[in-house]
Amino acid sequence: MGSPIFKRLIAVEDAQNIIIRNVERIRDSETVSIDEAVGRVVAENIYATIDVPSFDRATLDGFAVWSADIIGASEETPKRLRVLGYVKTGRVPRGVVRPGTAFRIDTGAMIPKGADVVVPVEYCDANNGVVFVFRSLPSGSNIQWAGGDIMRGEILVPAGTLLLPRHIGGLSASGISRIRVWRRPRIAVFSIGDELIGLDQEPSAGMIYDINTYTISSLLRLLGCTPIILGRTPDDPEAIARRIEEGLRRGDLVVSTGGSSVGQSDLVVRSLMRAGGTILFHGVMSKPGKPVLVARIGRKLYIGLPGNPTSAMVSFMLYVKPAVMAMLGCDAEHIDNITIRLRRREYGGGGRRLYRMIAIKIRRPSDYTYEPLPPASESISTMLKSDGYFVVPEGLEFLEKGHTVIARVLDGVLQHADILLVGEFSPSILGVLTETTHDMGLHVRYIRKSRESALQSYEDHVADIAIISGHIGGCDLLIRRRLILIARKREGILASAYNISVRGYRTIRVGTHQSAIFRYTQGYADAIIVPEEIARLYGLRGERFGFEELSVLIGNRHREHIIGILRGLGDEI
Amino acid sequence: MGSPIFKRLIAVEDAQNIIIRNVERIRDSETVSIDEAVGRVVAENIYATIDVPSFDRATLDGFAVWSADIIGASEETPKRLRVLGYVKTGRVPRGVVRPGTAFRIDTGAMIPKGADVVVPVEYCDANNGVVFVFRSLPSGSNIQWAGGDIMRGEILVPAGTLLLPRHIGGLSASGISRIRVWRRPRIAVFSIGDELIGLDQEPSAGMIYDINTYTISSLLRLLGCTPIILGRTPDDPEAIARRIEEGLRRGDLVVSTGGSSVGQSDLVVRSLMRAGGTILFHGVMSKPGKPVLVARIGRKLYIGLPGNPTSAMVSFMLYVKPAVMAMLGCDAEHIDNITIRLRRREYGGGGRRLYRMIAIKIRRPSDYTYEPLPPASESISTMLKSDGYFVVPEGLEFLEKGHTVIARVLDGVLQHADILLVGEFSPSILGVLTETTHDMGLHVRYIRKSRESALQSYEDHVADIAIISGHIGGCDLLIRRRLILIARKREGILASAYNISVRGYRTIRVGTHQSAIFRYTQGYADAIIVPEEIARLYGLRGERFGFEELSVLIGNRHREHIIGILRGLGDEI
Repeated sequence: MGSPIFKRLIAVEDAQNIIIRNVERIRDSETVSIDEAVGRVVAENIYATIDVPSFDRATLDGFAVWSADIIGASEETPKRLRVLGYVKTGRVPRGVVRPGTAFRIDTGAMIPKGADVVVPVEYCDANNGVVFVFRSLPSGSNIQWAGGDIMRGEILVPAGTLLLPRHIGGLSASGISRIRVWRRPRIAVFSIGDELIGLDQEPSAGMIYDINTYTISSLLRLLGCTPIILGRTPDDPEAIARRIEEGLRRGDLVVSTGGSSVGQSDLVVRSLMRAGGTILFHGVMSKPGKPVLVARIGRKLYIGLPGNPTSAMVSFMLYVKPAVMAMLGCDAEHIDNITIRLRRREYGGGGRRLYRMIAIKIRRPSDYTYEPLPPASESISTMLKSDGYFVVPEGLEFLEKGHTVIARVLDGVLQHADILLVGEFSPSILGVLTETTHDMGLHVRYIRKSRESALQSYEDHVADIAIISGHIGGCDLLIRRRLILIARKREGILASAYNISVRGYRTIRVGTHQSAIFRYTQGYADAIIVPEEIARLYGLRGERFGFEELSVLIGNRHREHIIGILRGLGDEI
Repeated sequence: MGSPIFKRLIAVEDAQNIIIRNVERIRDSETVSIDEAVGRVVAENIYATIDVPSFDRATLDGFAVWSADIIGASEETPKRLRVLGYVKTGRVPRGVVRPGTAFRIDTGAMIPKGADVVVPVEYCDANNGVVFVFRSLPSGSNIQWAGGDIMRGEILVPAGTLLLPRHIGGLSASGISRIRVWRRPRIAVFSIGDELIGLDQEPSAGMIYDINTYTISSLLRLLGCTPIILGRTPDDPEAIARRIEEGLRRGDLVVSTGGSSVGQSDLVVRSLMRAGGTILFHGVMSKPGKPVLVARIGRKLYIGLPGNPTSAMVSFMLYVKPAVMAMLGCDAEHIDNITIRLRRREYGGGGRRLYRMIAIKIRRPSDYTYEPLPPASESISTMLKSDGYFVVPEGLEFLEKGHTVIARVLDGVLQHADILLVGEFSPSILGVLTETTHDMGLHVRYIRKSRESALQSYEDHVADIAIISGHIGGCDLLIRRRLILIARKREGILASAYNISVRGYRTIRVGTHQSAIFRYTQGYADAIIVPEEIARLYGLRGERFGFEELSVLIGNRHREHIIGILRGLGDEI
């Protein structure tokens, strides 16, 4: 037990931290097709380059009409409209919905000019070019606004993300077909032992097969590494030193197994000294897995694992896996189920089993909470941003707030968001945060949320930053965002997400700034009022119109740092 | 919600069962190198073809001596022996340990002829060709017997096992370098929708990127399948029918996304009818994921998933993943942590954190128990057979029996052992069980255990079958196993694991039958007594010597079936 060679056994966590602190980051990246990107780690923040959807679209089959035309419509007093055309999915509408007219429209099809509401087929009766509408609906009903799912400029995947199938789908939705990823870490592997033979050799008396090379290289391949197999080395300090040198030349990290028994381990230590290495630790308070030896030679690490197969496997998971993740700047935890406490009452799906998609937040190790994602199954950002889900069983009306549920982690990999930002979309705030914290190795996740949900998330200590439109007393920062009027005519239709009237225009209220921009560029609107920082993303300019106040609330995690970063933006963006 | 097209929504589990019952098994296998075998599913039971270790070996550095020479040795009365040589790891010993002599020996090296015990260096004082031994030790001390880890003929990995790194290591230890695995399932994938464009196309107004193909094919690749991407299909029954036919021709299973909205789903149903399909179900009580449509055409399945991205992903996991696993005869659950109750007091590792390796048994869904594996870290079978581990924290003396602990599942994949067999190794019983149940799709796992542990495991309802040497009252079957005497001389050394004396021989008691066979073939022993069924594996014959009684205890799981199979063996093997 207390052999003199292990001068001071250290704790497993200390050993892991020493490795993570000393490992060198991979600095070379390569661009791969999205087809081949699963399991690779993203080398840069990836932002959406298009809006999803890129146009206002119908969320169900029905009739696209002008809401003013159906005010007061009911079973008894239906409104009669002339049907001018039919917008099919994937087609550009031809013609305009003028007062007294309608277009038949399919789910997912583009809303035609002049329409601001889609009446579901079940509230309509169409015949001979005429439709009777039996229900009055407010403006915006059954329309998914441009950018309602993903907004241009939004961060989709932060650098350091291990790409899983859901990311692949979400990125392809934004038109991204090639991704810059870190190159695969090259890990040199060899086994130490006079008694080892290869699987291609005839077993002779006293010899045993070198199995660790196979186990370790399989484990490395599953982690997305390229194992460089150096083979077997006898128990001889010179041979070991040569292998370590070869490994340092060819690999980013050198892993050996064996040579850790009392008699042998000074051989390895001597070999390391000969190679100019510094021993970082030797011996961990772990069973199996005590005789782990880690050294630094130049800027690279050598990790010597025990030769016993179970010890080698357990030690690999404890030390080599975190080293590889740290080399890639990736903070992924392999875990399948977590326990969370419901932040609010969660309603069931009627007779159907409800799968509630959530983003998972780690408060402290093993202490998880969550941010619910929009339940709309057409939402791509829900897929992209969901770390997992919990189930509300069929037939159950609701699960009460405070109830504990088990959430399933998608693909068994949980990736920590170091900073969770919710609320209003501001490309300037998001951009400065993601780019500045990127250099610190922090991962920022953004989830768009309504004012109420954003405040709730902040109060529940889930969101680290909430951005709210308007002035909230006691907020940490108040930033003014410039609004611009973009107009091709001094009269006509003005589209805006703000409740603003401008003389000379008839205002159409839309759900997103992106919808206003879509309507302007598509010729549906003659003028729009949008934040300048958003218009800029589309290369649009206009005249100053006014300001919108954004209140920024900042939680305790990295608080001072975040305040410092955002102060740099100034109080006007 | 209650659209007329979904005539009867069925429960998620019913949908899964219908798919598993109807899916066709992959029947073609291929042989792959062990380097490329991770993630593939084994197509046949794999048995050990060699013993591990294949020779008696020292478990520590010391002196190999004849135990009778050191009886009574102590600090005060050390025994003086002449040192004849030094056995290094990987070398065949030269010379024989005769009375009054010893060999220096390294950890892992082969025990020389004449020795039956290894005295650790710390109880010895060697100088000038002489060693003083300060401690008396019983025969067999510090020797790992041939076959003590893995026995020739033992089942290593049952057919249907998803190969993980630990299997790769364990199989390579037995000299297995090529493995027969099921060929990768070929899954045809296409998307339905007029509005879909490829990532290589310029986005035009009203169109959206086809993202499901990317998500689904990524998910399929992670499952070890070959996705056959058929591309996009407009909302047109003839086009859909053509795609389904192409998919059936080229794939083992056809998966589509989209086309499930009310207006479209009758298009798909019509297309399936045209292709000669039978609808197995249409609509599941799940949210998202209601409009799942599964049909059988000939012997192949078509699974239509919803087009919404989150629904497609959730439905994939619920229906396509189990289908693929069933196609491969694989019963693997992706799970990371389980809760188990300790079956006995578990002692800690002193100041070290103890990782206790265990085989996990599923009693009922979500109800797990375990079988502890030998803690010896040099054990390869421990690595091969461990499904996971639990931790006894450093500094803790023990965890009490009945205490609940969280066990970590290795690689996040738990593979059910349908039948767990423990106790004495009998190749005849194991062989008939594994081969007969193989055809039924049951996976048999064997763990060698001492008499006491085997009985305990059976009584704790962990083991389904226990085989115990000797007659146990109330056992379910009593089988007589023939013993044979194999001799090259009528006098000299007789090695046996049985406590048997034969006139003319001096008996050496060894720990395994495999050690007796090693000693005979290596010339260490002149005669051995071993079970005939084991000798046969080595092509050895001898004269009938007697019988050993094996008591077989059979638990409730598959009881009648197992009794039927084993009765077929007769009462003598």
